[in-house]
Amino acid sequence: MQANLNFIGKIETPFHTIDECPRNINPDGPECKLIMDEVYASGLSGLVEGQEILVLYWFQDVNRDSMIQNSRRTGKPAGVFSIRTPNRPNPIGAAVVKIEKISGNTITVKGLDCLNATQLLDIKPAILSERIDPNSPNQFFK
Amino acid sequence: MQANLNFIGKIETPFHTIDECPRNINPDGPECKLIMDEVYASGLSGLVEGQEILVLYWFQDVNRDSMIQNSRRTGKPAGVFSIRTPNRPNPIGAAVVKIEKISGNTITVKGLDCLNATQLLDIKPAILSERIDPNSPNQFFK
Repeated sequence: MQANLNFIGKIETPFHTIDECPRNINPDGPECKLIMDEVYASGLSGLVEGQEILVLYWFQDVNRDSMIQNSRRTGKPAGVFSIRTPNRPNPIGAAVVKIEKISGNTITVKGLDCLNATQLLDIKPAILSERIDPNSPNQFFK
Repeated sequence: MQANLNFIGKIETPFHTIDECPRNINPDGPECKLIMDEVYASGLSGLVEGQEILVLYWFQDVNRDSMIQNSRRTGKPAGVFSIRTPNRPNPIGAAVVKIEKISGNTITVKGLDCLNATQLLDIKPAILSERIDPNSPNQFFK
């Protein structure tokens, strides 16, 4: 059984090859931009600078069939669901980051780990268990 | 532009109608089971009881076209990306929960907020910014 995803925008990062991509999200990393397609831009209203968001994105050109892979951390074989590899049955990336700036259809954040031009899937306000800083102005409930 | 998702299993919860579903994840909520399809079950190896995971799942039968919706929290109109509504362009649910038990192809967790028989998309080890308890045995790096 399957479902379809719609790409809603793109992510601009400084990383143009897989080798350049850092292994993890880094709150002090370089600026990245979430650029929404115009048709979705009105959905950003209500988000505020300083707020933390959960960003979902799509890893392209990956292997979706390997249930056991070598962990980059340990070098040993591990089940795909026990590691953060982009090579997974549904290659959805997830990152909690703080909104540095919102301008029109563009949100600036820091320290994403994905390739430039990665397709954006969703932005959600981070909730308690996903939050970096409990003092930031997040919305706790929908 | 689009991409395809593969459903990799189902989530058993006690909630059979939308009205029964709680508004948020609750670490003290009722037991729920993540039941992987057999073809994906080997991908669970390496996950351990007590570990926190990020679970991604698919909200079915929702409206994917409304960029402005009434917030359940405030009752006022809000951009879809500023609230946690399941009615979103890509209706992917996300929850960080602790593994209570692993048995074969089944992981028991507590307090998910989704309907019974919700389709499972992904399980990832939670990382620093997503973690509930910094003392649990998560893997920080892939």
